[in-house]
Amino acid sequence: MPNQELASTAGRLAALRAAMRRHQIDAFMVPSADPHLSEYLPRRWQGRVWLSGFTGSVGTFVITADFAGVWTDGRYWTQAESELAGSTVELMKIPSGASVQYVDWLAANMRPGQTVAVDGTVLGLSVARLLEQALSAKKVALRTDTDLLHEVWLDRPGLPGAEVYALLPPYATRPRSEKLADLRAAMALNGASRHVISTLDDIAWLFNLRGADVSYNPVFLAHALIDTARATLFVAEGKVPPALRAALEDDGVDLAPYADFGAALAALPPDCSVLLDPRRVTHGTRQALPASVTVAEAVNPTTFAKSRKSAAEVQHVRATMEQDGAALCEFFCWLERELANPRRVPLTEVAVHEHITAARARRPRFVSPSFGTIAGFKANGAIMHYRATQASHAVIEGDGLLLIDSGGQYMGGTTDITRVVPVGSITAEHKRDFTLVLKGMIALSATTFPKGTRSPMLDAVARAPIWAAGIDFGHGTGHGVGFFLNVHEGPQSISPSTMPEPHTAMEAGMITSIEPGIYRPGHWGIRIENLVLNQPADTEPGAPFGEFLRFETLTLCPIDTRCIDLVLLRADERAWLNDYHATVRTRLAPHLAGDALAWLTIRTEAI
Amino acid sequence: MPNQELASTAGRLAALRAAMRRHQIDAFMVPSADPHLSEYLPRRWQGRVWLSGFTGSVGTFVITADFAGVWTDGRYWTQAESELAGSTVELMKIPSGASVQYVDWLAANMRPGQTVAVDGTVLGLSVARLLEQALSAKKVALRTDTDLLHEVWLDRPGLPGAEVYALLPPYATRPRSEKLADLRAAMALNGASRHVISTLDDIAWLFNLRGADVSYNPVFLAHALIDTARATLFVAEGKVPPALRAALEDDGVDLAPYADFGAALAALPPDCSVLLDPRRVTHGTRQALPASVTVAEAVNPTTFAKSRKSAAEVQHVRATMEQDGAALCEFFCWLERELANPRRVPLTEVAVHEHITAARARRPRFVSPSFGTIAGFKANGAIMHYRATQASHAVIEGDGLLLIDSGGQYMGGTTDITRVVPVGSITAEHKRDFTLVLKGMIALSATTFPKGTRSPMLDAVARAPIWAAGIDFGHGTGHGVGFFLNVHEGPQSISPSTMPEPHTAMEAGMITSIEPGIYRPGHWGIRIENLVLNQPADTEPGAPFGEFLRFETLTLCPIDTRCIDLVLLRADERAWLNDYHATVRTRLAPHLAGDALAWLTIRTEAI
Repeated sequence: MPNQELASTAGRLAALRAAMRRHQIDAFMVPSADPHLSEYLPRRWQGRVWLSGFTGSVGTFVITADFAGVWTDGRYWTQAESELAGSTVELMKIPSGASVQYVDWLAANMRPGQTVAVDGTVLGLSVARLLEQALSAKKVALRTDTDLLHEVWLDRPGLPGAEVYALLPPYATRPRSEKLADLRAAMALNGASRHVISTLDDIAWLFNLRGADVSYNPVFLAHALIDTARATLFVAEGKVPPALRAALEDDGVDLAPYADFGAALAALPPDCSVLLDPRRVTHGTRQALPASVTVAEAVNPTTFAKSRKSAAEVQHVRATMEQDGAALCEFFCWLERELANPRRVPLTEVAVHEHITAARARRPRFVSPSFGTIAGFKANGAIMHYRATQASHAVIEGDGLLLIDSGGQYMGGTTDITRVVPVGSITAEHKRDFTLVLKGMIALSATTFPKGTRSPMLDAVARAPIWAAGIDFGHGTGHGVGFFLNVHEGPQSISPSTMPEPHTAMEAGMITSIEPGIYRPGHWGIRIENLVLNQPADTEPGAPFGEFLRFETLTLCPIDTRCIDLVLLRADERAWLNDYHATVRTRLAPHLAGDALAWLTIRTEAI
Repeated sequence: MPNQELASTAGRLAALRAAMRRHQIDAFMVPSADPHLSEYLPRRWQGRVWLSGFTGSVGTFVITADFAGVWTDGRYWTQAESELAGSTVELMKIPSGASVQYVDWLAANMRPGQTVAVDGTVLGLSVARLLEQALSAKKVALRTDTDLLHEVWLDRPGLPGAEVYALLPPYATRPRSEKLADLRAAMALNGASRHVISTLDDIAWLFNLRGADVSYNPVFLAHALIDTARATLFVAEGKVPPALRAALEDDGVDLAPYADFGAALAALPPDCSVLLDPRRVTHGTRQALPASVTVAEAVNPTTFAKSRKSAAEVQHVRATMEQDGAALCEFFCWLERELANPRRVPLTEVAVHEHITAARARRPRFVSPSFGTIAGFKANGAIMHYRATQASHAVIEGDGLLLIDSGGQYMGGTTDITRVVPVGSITAEHKRDFTLVLKGMIALSATTFPKGTRSPMLDAVARAPIWAAGIDFGHGTGHGVGFFLNVHEGPQSISPSTMPEPHTAMEAGMITSIEPGIYRPGHWGIRIENLVLNQPADTEPGAPFGEFLRFETLTLCPIDTRCIDLVLLRADERAWLNDYHATVRTRLAPHLAGDALAWLTIRTEAI
């Protein structure tokens, strides 16, 4: 099997190099992107996987006549090393925070007069600018009008064709007509008469539509063009049912074929003003606009609006968290019982994913997992983006920690939670690490901060208790989360690799994860993750120092107190945890019965 | 008096507008800068003060035919309002973090075809690029070859002429020849055969020279041009004594007249490669280079090298801190006695400055204050850059808090310390605010963090205990400090308004201030400031998470425990303070006698 894979990789690279010679291209680049700059790519745009054999979700592929390499970050090194072993494709390790390092490589390794090519329709505009600048300084040409994959990937998958559906009240808490009116006001503030949106979650949010074109995110492939009176949604024919099409038309939203997007941009009035977000549209989109239009660049107004959940959305999320937490209690109750009983069939990491998904699926309004469950036992818990498969997984037996990071898409919200549970007996070292991670999570969860604080600046608050022990972790502390939308959404991000630019400001209504961790490669991994809501905080009378925010913890599920070293917890940290468990018990008990209710009661006892 | 001032401002503006008409200039801009982009400007480059009447240390002046305004940030608004009152010059308030807001104003208010002029020899290169980009987008021309001040400021001061002197061993801990060798290695890494330095502290550090051309910073006006074999120092004739000139020549450093700098740049070989730092050279310097040279842009290597104090420098700083702390004990002992005794002459904020400087001056190797003492009683303490003057100051009597922020330049280091002491009886509110500030200072002082952490990311650690009470402060938590050099130096900065770019990384040997505060305008201001040294921290065996740093507190002076609300301090915070006071007592006692020693003993008692 591996040999066959390697043979096909070698053949594909040879075919690509032949095409490069035909087109006089010296380096060809395949970014980890689609025309919507999505995190999860439809198979049609997984050209790097097809070419290189590296299946991780993030990686940039570059090939020249005598080099082929995949740039990826620390989360994927172990996986890439194993998948690329024996091939001619090199793993190019990206240090944290240097996501466009391949730009430097190209600038350093190409000679004046040579040509680099990349498909401009999947190249982010802001990345394209970096690339253009770096290459032009070295007198290297950049071609973005050719996608060589067309010529060599003969069985390339087509566009996904899942049906688009309306998100209806009560889960749609504001009509699309109101959202469009607000968007047009923001366009006017930017002096724009047109606005282009390519990011799928912005489109789904704006039009109160959902789909199933990619894994885990309930979105559909489309571009949108909004003017001062109407909006056009470019979506493949046959995906929108007639009744929904009619409802959209009534709201001023016309449909057009997905493939007509570029032509529609080219046909814009030559003197109009277009608002676009250089991080959320591609180079190809920018190129398609008439040269004479005025472009106003700003973060998509929908990105801000979508991040500030309405009071009604927050109420749905709270209800969803009760269902999600109850499902998890049933799962953990089952897990403990299984672990305690002698079994004929070994319990595996794969079974964890199946049972946790089944428990969620029994809950009302569940749609799908919100990402691939990460269930890592012992050393597998230290692999940050570990994914157990039928072909490769661990059996859960003996002693150690089991890390489970999972989430669900419900009509009433998106969940994302990580818990670590003990299997067999665990050591003092396990407990110390677990307690340090818990201290980090509590420290940030309990923090009050000025409205408008740039979210990356909060990262160190969660890290400080872990740093105190000479330990750090190689991922951000938290990410924004959508409302029945992407489990990773902006503009906020609690991460040292995000620049604290103004658009990252914390505002009321945002939902963010808090998920510090400790990873000991080859031994164990610990991460504790809750979702939190930005809530207005009490301030001094008259608020002389402005408005403040605090976090309301939304996630409801016990944190396993058997893993805690009590000596390391301060009184205020212990009080926080006991308060949290009291809330968890009160909120989840009405949704549970029998063994699962008994389990909840035990696992929420005060310490 | 005020009328006369206003009359002269009006006359100067009229003369400038006449010159603008002669040169067909529609807007003239005076940045707060000199050819060296210094913080403290020689009077020759205080054109904005001369034109507008606003004497604050930071402000950008813009004048058009019908508008004149000074952009300055929140630290200076009160002062600017009072100084500009009655004039036609408007105060343009810059929100924190928006230091180049005047660029947006010019772009918005100028019409296509108009011309903006600014003296390119005092315009930072990175700011010039922003300005060029913003104006060219609006088809507004930018002229940088004309300094209208020449025509209207008839009694403009000349160049300062203080003598340059050598910093000798033991205070010069590395010979300039070694520093030059290291610099040339860094130039080679950047592919450069030439390097231009205009920043005065970089020059003073590199050549082991000091001067007295500006207030508080022991630097001298010069530019430097370094090639692979020799270096040229452009310094006004007569400032370097013959013996020093000879010593410099022996070390490969030639002198040239200050005014020849531009011509020397223009005469560089057309194919050479020049390393320069766009934040540390001016637009005029970049323009003076032949168009054909290759420019490599990077942070000045000396800026990094200078920030990492050598072990020998650190030993000097520790000894200096003992002298500085002892001087402060003598001062505070005197202050308390004076406050307790009935006086005939009232005790003023000005007297504080005089006595604190006199106490330092009695200590060995004292050179000068390191900045203008801020002694603010009651409401004056809330004015961040308050400066008591003979004409305007408060008498220290009655009840309230007295904030004193002061520092000294010694041959063995630069100090900067803020303490707050009670006068008369103070309230529970005073104590609560003081304790919150103390908690913030302790939280950051006690933090361990990975080597390479970008310094701005640490800011929230000091702020979190203050935020918890719904309070914030409007300045950064800390700044880098030089070794017998500028009291503000880079590249590190613990501030939310500094982008955490790679060059802000924390490295061993850096000295930084930690100085959180709480300011209640009209009532009181509290700030507690220590200098800390980045020290390697203990990590786990084998350092699986890399190297860590901790802070060694360098500043030695009691923190007034009479201002503390003990209920608000955690046990670990109290332990930190008691440990600190034990160290202060042990280290300072040998340098004190009599009343001051008794005072030290009382004020360092454990709580």
